[in-house]
Amino acid sequence: MRIGFVGLGAMGAPMARNLHRASLLAGVWNRTQGKAAALAAELGCNAYPTLADLAADCDVVGICVSADADLREVVAGLSPGLGAGKIVIDFSTVGAGTARALHARLAAGGVGFLDCPVSGGIEGARQGTLAIMAGGDEAVFERARPVLEAVGRKIAHLGPSGAGQATKATNQIMCAGIIQAVAEAMAFAQAEGLPLERVIDTLGQGAGSSWYFVNRAPYMAKGQYPAGFRVRLHEKDLRICREMAAAHGARLPVVESTLAEYAALIRDGHGDEDISTIYRSKSALFADADGKPGA
Amino acid sequence: MRIGFVGLGAMGAPMARNLHRASLLAGVWNRTQGKAAALAAELGCNAYPTLADLAADCDVVGICVSADADLREVVAGLSPGLGAGKIVIDFSTVGAGTARALHARLAAGGVGFLDCPVSGGIEGARQGTLAIMAGGDEAVFERARPVLEAVGRKIAHLGPSGAGQATKATNQIMCAGIIQAVAEAMAFAQAEGLPLERVIDTLGQGAGSSWYFVNRAPYMAKGQYPAGFRVRLHEKDLRICREMAAAHGARLPVVESTLAEYAALIRDGHGDEDISTIYRSKSALFADADGKPGA
Repeated sequence: MRIGFVGLGAMGAPMARNLHRASLLAGVWNRTQGKAAALAAELGCNAYPTLADLAADCDVVGICVSADADLREVVAGLSPGLGAGKIVIDFSTVGAGTARALHARLAAGGVGFLDCPVSGGIEGARQGTLAIMAGGDEAVFERARPVLEAVGRKIAHLGPSGAGQATKATNQIMCAGIIQAVAEAMAFAQAEGLPLERVIDTLGQGAGSSWYFVNRAPYMAKGQYPAGFRVRLHEKDLRICREMAAAHGARLPVVESTLAEYAALIRDGHGDEDISTIYRSKSALFADADGKPGA
Repeated sequence: MRIGFVGLGAMGAPMARNLHRASLLAGVWNRTQGKAAALAAELGCNAYPTLADLAADCDVVGICVSADADLREVVAGLSPGLGAGKIVIDFSTVGAGTARALHARLAAGGVGFLDCPVSGGIEGARQGTLAIMAGGDEAVFERARPVLEAVGRKIAHLGPSGAGQATKATNQIMCAGIIQAVAEAMAFAQAEGLPLERVIDTLGQGAGSSWYFVNRAPYMAKGQYPAGFRVRLHEKDLRICREMAAAHGARLPVVESTLAEYAALIRDGHGDEDISTIYRSKSALFADADGKPGA
């Protein structure tokens, strides 16, 4: 099986490396061509001149880009080289509607399309331990399994096209509400003068606990927010959630309030910090009142 | 050490039983005296005619009541029987200010006071596995340890008087935001037609996970909300959080939005269901739009 990989950013580059380690990588393409040339030289694989060349030379194309428009553009570029039996796997986080539209368009030419957004961050991408949430035809998913197993560890098929993106969106909604809850609670604890490390240790074992509390409340206690999961990226994902909910005519309170807080954080220059930086805004609720800096 | 226990409700009665099992229980008192008489007859301990009699006969008094006013009334009733060296342990969830005021008043007479709110629910109370968040003088805490160990398992001293209540309030704020996040995400997943059990299984292992997601999202998937942690009780606790925040001049968005949702749920007759019943309101965001029942 020959794999081509498109999009060599912070997530895509280490994923391509893992495909190379699994002896699956035929070559790469990147919008900034220098990046592709450098990686190809390092790994000894092809740096394709065009997306169509990559598609023509490969059985499976993996994609990891930033936004819906980028994905549509990449698939359009691949199209002349695609043909019946080939598979396109999109690892980007985009709207489920975008995934379903591309799935339908490619299916008409006998090309498989899987939406496979991931979670686990840059560390997971490097270590090949990403969680992969797949949507698409089951038979295509099974054929693509060796590729998925080369880049991820927890691999789940959630249903037809779009189900992977919808599951990822579900996760991002949870992260939004949880980071708000953890930050608001920690700001309260700080205002009450509690020993924050002991509070984290005590409550981390109970029913109010969460991955974010155990792993990110310590950032808040120290006032340091190394990225992590950047505000800017979660903001982008929540805009997708907003659009998907709007397609049902729904407006989601947790999503909307988090987007509002993120807009302020980005405006104030914190967009590239970990989302636990929302502790800044929650602390300000108390600082303003107590007349401390921030008032 | 002779312990008297006051407040034999759903939490207090099993706590008194565990003190009896540890051979520490001298007797009980309850506002509805029949309950105290029945438990005393069953366990072969005293049913004291008055709170002052209980206080006079015991070294340590444990209390588990519903609200700040109940607690103040109980301590007033105990007062004539209290004296230097005795300890009052309050297991109720009340405001940290109430705890600090009682601590100060009793300290004047040489009586120790610990705020020791618990978590772990009725099951934890029965099994003696409650988490106990203690505030108060360290020496008093150490003397009270055998009593705490008879009713709980994870016992933490968080600082001076009020620190136990403040820690419990911190936990209740987290629970509020998390249950909203989980319910909103699950309602979204349902609207997207995802297989909910598989979604829970997949996301339950990731960074968006939480105790509430793993343990309560399955209730939402089934549309069944056995109590659990009743809306009515969490609502009471969040009012305490609101008051404590207001003492700093702060208004907490997660707390306020959850109180608003709970008010509607209680009005609609869901106050005695588990807090996961908030899934009803979140589902309605989609049901209204899709013209399903609830529109």
